[in-house]
Amino acid sequence: MSSVTDAPNTTASLSEITHEEIFAGHLGGKLSVELSAPLDTQRDLSIAYTPGVAQVSRAIAADDALAKRYTWTDRLVVVVSDGTAVLGLGDIGARASLPVMEGKAALFKKFAGLNSIPLVLDTKDVDEIVETLIRLRPSFGAVNLEDISAPRCFEIEKRVIEALDCPVMHDDQHGTAIVVLAALNGAATVQGRDIKDLKVVVSGAGAAGVACTNILLAAGVEDVVVLDSKGIVSTDRDNLNEVKAELAQRSNPRKLSGTAADALAGADVFMGLSAGTIAEELIASMAPNGIVFAMSNPDPEIHPEIAQKYVQIVATGRSDFPNQINNVLAFPGVFKGALDAGARRITEGMKVAAANAIFGVVRDELAVDKIIPSPLDPRVAPAVAEAVAAAARAEGVA
Amino acid sequence: MSSVTDAPNTTASLSEITHEEIFAGHLGGKLSVELSAPLDTQRDLSIAYTPGVAQVSRAIAADDALAKRYTWTDRLVVVVSDGTAVLGLGDIGARASLPVMEGKAALFKKFAGLNSIPLVLDTKDVDEIVETLIRLRPSFGAVNLEDISAPRCFEIEKRVIEALDCPVMHDDQHGTAIVVLAALNGAATVQGRDIKDLKVVVSGAGAAGVACTNILLAAGVEDVVVLDSKGIVSTDRDNLNEVKAELAQRSNPRKLSGTAADALAGADVFMGLSAGTIAEELIASMAPNGIVFAMSNPDPEIHPEIAQKYVQIVATGRSDFPNQINNVLAFPGVFKGALDAGARRITEGMKVAAANAIFGVVRDELAVDKIIPSPLDPRVAPAVAEAVAAAARAEGVA
Repeated sequence: MSSVTDAPNTTASLSEITHEEIFAGHLGGKLSVELSAPLDTQRDLSIAYTPGVAQVSRAIAADDALAKRYTWTDRLVVVVSDGTAVLGLGDIGARASLPVMEGKAALFKKFAGLNSIPLVLDTKDVDEIVETLIRLRPSFGAVNLEDISAPRCFEIEKRVIEALDCPVMHDDQHGTAIVVLAALNGAATVQGRDIKDLKVVVSGAGAAGVACTNILLAAGVEDVVVLDSKGIVSTDRDNLNEVKAELAQRSNPRKLSGTAADALAGADVFMGLSAGTIAEELIASMAPNGIVFAMSNPDPEIHPEIAQKYVQIVATGRSDFPNQINNVLAFPGVFKGALDAGARRITEGMKVAAANAIFGVVRDELAVDKIIPSPLDPRVAPAVAEAVAAAARAEGVA
Repeated sequence: MSSVTDAPNTTASLSEITHEEIFAGHLGGKLSVELSAPLDTQRDLSIAYTPGVAQVSRAIAADDALAKRYTWTDRLVVVVSDGTAVLGLGDIGARASLPVMEGKAALFKKFAGLNSIPLVLDTKDVDEIVETLIRLRPSFGAVNLEDISAPRCFEIEKRVIEALDCPVMHDDQHGTAIVVLAALNGAATVQGRDIKDLKVVVSGAGAAGVACTNILLAAGVEDVVVLDSKGIVSTDRDNLNEVKAELAQRSNPRKLSGTAADALAGADVFMGLSAGTIAEELIASMAPNGIVFAMSNPDPEIHPEIAQKYVQIVATGRSDFPNQINNVLAFPGVFKGALDAGARRITEGMKVAAANAIFGVVRDELAVDKIIPSPLDPRVAPAVAEAVAAAARAEGVA
């Protein structure tokens, strides 16, 4: 793994990058399969292929555990999508999701040194997706589920975890949640507050919104109110799907009902995790020293410069403003740590350990415009991997 | 693609390679996924991943054909196996087949510059294998079926070809057949004979035996007699599976019946394509100026030095004797040619074109101990690819 450079243009505006530059960067795809051993001579061929390879295959047939040592499979991460919820673009299909999945695979290599390949599926059927991964089980060592629409993503992840004895994570849920928790810890620490005391409004009850709510509750935040497109997710409502109905039970302790305005009046934190927008006056109605995470991409729920007029700390998903909340801070290290430890699954404890590790990297450098490390900070993935592996061992899943 | 070296140790004995060297050559697997574009700066990240990637995904969603240009998928070869007929080792399972599949993927890169990954399946059910590949269709550009047992391999290949609009080939069948046809052309040319006049005995009615018989018949060889473990495959027999019964109709024009001894008496060519052995006295019973291809691996059906006492030309599957018949002469160029031409399938004409191209490389260098190019001859894959692409265009499948 080569080192990354936290270049001076960290906050370079995307507007400086042309359409042509972007397409040129994707020409021919972004991945290449290379040989990790030479294949130049007849002797190399006799070792890597027939007849030599027969000895290795025979050894694995006799002792399955040797596959971990003599194949790439046990450390290979498959990035799996059905193309139903790609970035903010929605259900654009498996083929159109490929540039994202290749990018994800490239990030696994760049930040964690892990081999990774995209597997995109021409089916949206939950049973078929789960079944396909079960049949392919000998081909990989871990599953990163990606850009699968809610609420299907919850069932798919649950069933894949149950079916496979390897690390499985839907990154749109848990990668986001881990980084959000790290960033909230950073923001609260800058302000000298405890996250447990914050009134948090989570806008969006899709994959990311649900997972962020869960990790905040698990981290001890007591007052979380969730918004969907129809308003506050509360037990009063009769138009909630199963996942939201369950969420309504565990959140909204003040039993609020109504709209975003009702939720935001006096709130400490706004977390935007939908593709929507939030009106300036609602941000203005928040409590003093507010915190706004406007994470919709590429267009934040509110422009950071406008939010900044009313709150103390603003974070976005974008690289051209300070405090970028980017999943790449989490997923490479989470999977590396899980695989390093030989973990059979990724637990809540491992996710919280990842968030604490991300926070830990910048604990001594915190500022209102640095509540979280840069996505290119080379210290992050190793710290996350170490913390996740330690948590896996401590929890006995390794 | 770096060049290969036809090193002086071309016929180095495998006995010089230790068990330790072989296992060391497979440590950690033989493949690595690398980035084909830099990912070092925030700007790189904005191009390769969010937000830039959204433009590329949106463009593919609008025009599916752009996936060919901006992803790796359309030129990616998946090496697919269920581990049921791995080398001469039999049904050792998907995990144990992995070192072979990784080796195959490495050879695709080395000889044809193609990205290739192994996909091994934890099912032997024909319907499930076909269905799994249909669901994964957006993830790859071509399918190399590998080490799947007969007669299942025939149905699986047929159905995958019907279901997918991309190049599909079961290499154990057709890769072998292509190289065998090239080698027989080489041997006959050395002898100043026409292959059409040769009496050929094919020992083995599995994947390779059936495909070799088919390509020989297609190339105009009139007298082909096939042997299975019970003797000559003939219309007299009532213990033939569907594939062999069909083969009996098209081969054995002299209506022979009986054992290997009956087939070999007076034959010009013996082709060993089973894991069995052939008795010395049967080789001795062949017509003068005989040709023996003893291709079982790692142990030829008869030791080449013994066969040499009775026949003029001997070839094996091994690297430590002259005239190595190795599929690597065919499959990299066949898939490269098919993908270069944008072929929707691999036709019989493309296979014959590949055989002719392999033969063409050594046409002016032929000798009894050089009826076929070395597996490392760097001229072969480009020549095969060019011939296959031309045939694809001529046949209108591109």
